[in-house]
Amino acid sequence: MFKIRSLVTALALVSSISVASAWETLPTSAPAPADNPTTDEKVELGKMLYHDPRLSSTGTVSCASCHNTMLGGEDNRPNSMGVNGQTGGRSAPTVWNAAFNAVQFWDGRAATLEAQAAGPVTNPIEMGMKSWDDVVARLKTIEGYEVAFETAFGKNSISKDNATKAIAAYERTLITPYSPYDRYVAGDKSALTAQQISGMEKVQSLGCTSCHSGPAFNGPGMFQQFPIHSNPVYAAKYHFKDDKGLAEVTKKESDEHFFKVPTLRNIALTAPYFHNGAVKTLDEAVTVMAKTQLDKELTKAEVADIVAFLNGLTGQFPKQTMPVLPATPGSTFN
Amino acid sequence: MFKIRSLVTALALVSSISVASAWETLPTSAPAPADNPTTDEKVELGKMLYHDPRLSSTGTVSCASCHNTMLGGEDNRPNSMGVNGQTGGRSAPTVWNAAFNAVQFWDGRAATLEAQAAGPVTNPIEMGMKSWDDVVARLKTIEGYEVAFETAFGKNSISKDNATKAIAAYERTLITPYSPYDRYVAGDKSALTAQQISGMEKVQSLGCTSCHSGPAFNGPGMFQQFPIHSNPVYAAKYHFKDDKGLAEVTKKESDEHFFKVPTLRNIALTAPYFHNGAVKTLDEAVTVMAKTQLDKELTKAEVADIVAFLNGLTGQFPKQTMPVLPATPGSTFN
Repeated sequence: MFKIRSLVTALALVSSISVASAWETLPTSAPAPADNPTTDEKVELGKMLYHDPRLSSTGTVSCASCHNTMLGGEDNRPNSMGVNGQTGGRSAPTVWNAAFNAVQFWDGRAATLEAQAAGPVTNPIEMGMKSWDDVVARLKTIEGYEVAFETAFGKNSISKDNATKAIAAYERTLITPYSPYDRYVAGDKSALTAQQISGMEKVQSLGCTSCHSGPAFNGPGMFQQFPIHSNPVYAAKYHFKDDKGLAEVTKKESDEHFFKVPTLRNIALTAPYFHNGAVKTLDEAVTVMAKTQLDKELTKAEVADIVAFLNGLTGQFPKQTMPVLPATPGSTFN
Repeated sequence: MFKIRSLVTALALVSSISVASAWETLPTSAPAPADNPTTDEKVELGKMLYHDPRLSSTGTVSCASCHNTMLGGEDNRPNSMGVNGQTGGRSAPTVWNAAFNAVQFWDGRAATLEAQAAGPVTNPIEMGMKSWDDVVARLKTIEGYEVAFETAFGKNSISKDNATKAIAAYERTLITPYSPYDRYVAGDKSALTAQQISGMEKVQSLGCTSCHSGPAFNGPGMFQQFPIHSNPVYAAKYHFKDDKGLAEVTKKESDEHFFKVPTLRNIALTAPYFHNGAVKTLDEAVTVMAKTQLDKELTKAEVADIVAFLNGLTGQFPKQTMPVLPATPGSTFN
């Protein structure tokens, strides 16, 4: 169901069949937790760390390798490729607007961006560092990082905690507002085409927005079973159920195949789709979702309208400067 | 020998034991070939292509993966890691100031930056594309590239030739002037320390600058045998002779173990050293070079002075904006 933000909105819903007031634009800034207020210095340091392949065992994989800030915030691959060409079972979620996820990872196992940032670095098939102690030790050999951490956190402050805080602070700036959808909702009625508006109405009337709600269309904090309705054709083709989702973390049968509801923002840029990246096109993703989640067969025209609307969720990407990473004289990776 | 640029310089050499006039500062811009004049539009397109991992078969490796423009222009690895975690036998040369190399690659097999740019893309262990036809076909599916090529080269201009021209145009902007050395040579006598000046004198008196001459210390256009003097300790430890260098291209015995003289600029940032990246520290690289090329045993103090000087060749890296790569709706890499 839509989040009904206030009595005023609730009354508006009652008094009119228009539910336009339920559509929310994307905020242009993200709130920060009390223990990690965003500062320019942290953002600058976080940007460096985020793009630094020296946070991986081989010196070849940075956060940006799989969550590419020059593209749609991921890698357009079914599964990302970590150190030594290894691949896992899940598709990299986009980093753009991740600040608006209530929880992180497909299974929501990280409560914050800070906690998420710590994970891939020591995952053996992702960035492959043996431990965060090793990461910290390596960073301490890089004089420029001593300086950048000091500027952001004070003297002798290189630590896992501060590194992940800086990365999270940077990620909170990765927001893509002013999509055609946002401009439409803000009052520019020419920002969406007639077909997109038709798709927007269908997304609501069909029930997509029951889960994909809120400004980032990610039902903030919501988990949902996927697939709800089993389908032998999709089962054979896409193997969605090979991954138990939340139950892989909680080991509870009732959590099997539950996943965090992912954002729909910039979805046109983030093929392939679903937790395992099994579906290559947005048309097919929409068709699959309607069938597995809503038990509905969409016509080609309905799919086309919805895809047109989803294309209207591509936001404006901020211009960024490229970080200049501090060098280590004599550093080498074997 | 030093390049003697003019009769005036030659006379200055004769009239004084000071040879300061032979030291050249790095130009702040690089000349472009007649068939590829540098334009802002080409540079912008080239920057996009250079950083785009979709120029590799897996969608994970861009030019910047091994020649990192956020660092010293390479990857601090003995051998780079290409698609699917594969590694080759040579160490990635820095892209910074590559515009001042007369030839490209360790064996000089590419006469221009344009020719160089074409190579790694279809190398099976680097970027792994089957052919440039495949690259061009992929680029043509990306609407934003149609636009960017049109802006740089005119309508329907996506081609191997134009892609490599754009990359080369971008690379010609990757120049790091104003190192302490350059500032010293330009007249700021406080730019180098006494130890660095002592190292500078040794680099000349020992004979290093016989090959490492010119503004980029790369004896522009020069090839040299490496190692000249065989040394059983280094042979066992570093295996320099496993690679036949120029002879791998020409198949001529007289070219065996000849390599392009690499630049010394930013060398403090580009460990490990030599064509095979076998030597981890600059101290050891200097020691090895003196022994194998000049048949000289350096004292620790001599090595320290030279390394201090080489640290003075680290230039100023230009601030760059991060490219926003054009997306392909529905693109995916398997």
